[in-house]
Amino acid sequence: VGKPKFTTDRLYDSPPPGTVMGLAWTAMGGSSLYIEATVADRVKDGGSLKTTGQLGSVMKESSDIALTVAKGILRKTHPVDDVDADSDDATAQTGPHNFFNRHHVHVHVPEGATPKDGPSAGVTMVTSLLSLALDKPVKANVAMTGEVTLNGRVLPVGGIKEKTIAGKRSGVTTFIFPEANRKDVDDLPDYITEGLEIHFASEYEDVYKNAFEH
Amino acid sequence: VGKPKFTTDRLYDSPPPGTVMGLAWTAMGGSSLYIEATVADRVKDGGSLKTTGQLGSVMKESSDIALTVAKGILRKTHPVDDVDADSDDATAQTGPHNFFNRHHVHVHVPEGATPKDGPSAGVTMVTSLLSLALDKPVKANVAMTGEVTLNGRVLPVGGIKEKTIAGKRSGVTTFIFPEANRKDVDDLPDYITEGLEIHFASEYEDVYKNAFEH
Amino acid sequence: VGKPKFTTDRLYDSPPPGTVMGLAWTAMGGSSLYIEATVADRVKDGGSLKTTGQLGSVMKESSDIALTVAKGILRKTHPVDDVDADSDDATAQTGPHNFFNRHHVHVHVPEGATPKDGPSAGVTMVTSLLSLALDKPVKANVAMTGEVTLNGRVLPVGGIKEKTIAGKRSGVTTFIFPEANRKDVDDLPDYITEGLEIHFASEYEDVYKNAFEH
Repeated sequence: VGKPKFTTDRLYDSPPPGTVMGLAWTAMGGSSLYIEATVADRVKDGGSLKTTGQLGSVMKESSDIALTVAKGILRKTHPVDDVDADSDDATAQTGPHNFFNRHHVHVHVPEGATPKDGPSAGVTMVTSLLSLALDKPVKANVAMTGEVTLNGRVLPVGGIKEKTIAGKRSGVTTFIFPEANRKDVDDLPDYITEGLEIHFASEYEDVYKNAFEH
Repeated sequence: VGKPKFTTDRLYDSPPPGTVMGLAWTAMGGSSLYIEATVADRVKDGGSLKTTGQLGSVMKESSDIALTVAKGILRKTHPVDDVDADSDDATAQTGPHNFFNRHHVHVHVPEGATPKDGPSAGVTMVTSLLSLALDKPVKANVAMTGEVTLNGRVLPVGGIKEKTIAGKRSGVTTFIFPEANRKDVDDLPDYITEGLEIHFASEYEDVYKNAFEH
Repeated sequence: VGKPKFTTDRLYDSPPPGTVMGLAWTAMGGSSLYIEATVADRVKDGGSLKTTGQLGSVMKESSDIALTVAKGILRKTHPVDDVDADSDDATAQTGPHNFFNRHHVHVHVPEGATPKDGPSAGVTMVTSLLSLALDKPVKANVAMTGEVTLNGRVLPVGGIKEKTIAGKRSGVTTFIFPEANRKDVDDLPDYITEGLEIHFASEYEDVYKNAFEH
């Protein structure tokens, strides 16, 4: 996902709600990148998701998948008892479960001119959307990588070593990796992993638990 | 459909409603893959179907065909007596026969970066949509392959041998194949088919009978 | 339209309403194919037509033309006296003349992965749509070919010999050809036409008369 440019390596000391650091990897090495999700517009009904940042088709689909996953999680974590989708009750309509129906959301991945693609920002995008919907920033110095499926399963990605090194360089102290990449982390030399907090996720919920303060 | 990667060969021990294992085949050999159907949104009226997973044009059309077939089956299996489509009666509107009118459905085929195409996931897609609409998981360890026509006829597919081997490797014990592929199964050596339960389908209903517990 | 594959040459012994056998022709020879029209959804107002089967742009336009022709025929054959299109009278709204306004219709041409194009399925598509709207199957063992204009004129097509041979191979006993192809049929050797019932159509109405039982 683009060549590493140190200009984005540390854009935020504590990212606002909606912004989450991901980790990318190319033949040029690893790099950190931010997923920035913000509200473009509030609407009564029929929200949308727009993406920018020269995303390729896999990464665009990844943002669609992330949106569906995020919606599903919000419906689970913020159930609306005895409220029907048809209800006109204001609370029913404005709660987090309905956030993406009430907002046009814009997701950007700086730097804008660097083409990016691949599915490995999946968990980062879900986290970014949830952070925005819940108006809750992620922990400082956390970064993550992992493909996510529509049911929230976290699939392995490539470049664990390069991503870890790039993350450290950007001040990351807490990493969230796919469970299926545990062996790659175990293979890392101690001088790389020393002092790092590393979590593994097989379901998106494992990401959620470690990305936010509770 | 993509090279076999063991990481997704067995993503679910018991797939949730909406998720069904299919079987793919390329020059590289066979592989198992999951069709994941989930609800993206509930709506009052005018549902939709979105697909992701780098699907080619034939596979996208396949999902459209699957949707029409699934709707037709739900109208047959869950008829609404004395209810007109125009009725405002709640039961009439929220039953399974009206599921796809009341939900935006998202179908994803992991892994997200692997391009996939071809019509042979037809029966798997129909099953996935019905599983979601009926909130009913398929049997454990079942996998299927077959093109489906708009009237629910099941057409033969290629790669039966490779698909059987790939399915076994992923823990599949019950296979559903097109009736027109029976000869290909008969040609398989015993050491491959030993211990497997194999069903043949000429109509989608034959798939339905063997995919779900009754 | 695709290479002949005997697997679909005889998919239906008696096709359901909406399904009609057409005849295609390529450099590879003739083949029979099915046009399958089904109801995707019932709607109050504003039906639509969706096509699948890897149809090229000419064949897609052909389906649009077929829809307009079919609507015109239904308005003629099922006139609604003293009924305004705006009327709320149920019979007025649900009659055959209003079928395509009240239904989302899906037309598929198996096999799904075979690209198809050309205008010669025009009469078959009109027949398929009328069969669906009237809930009336066509005669058994009938097949047809012919381009249709917006006014219902039937234009000549190529490959009459190849199409006749392919149709016979699929069990067709009644053929409907464009009037302008009569000379091509006259040129066929007796051993091909022996025992066949062959009709010629210069207007779509000539097709209609011979495709359905009366």
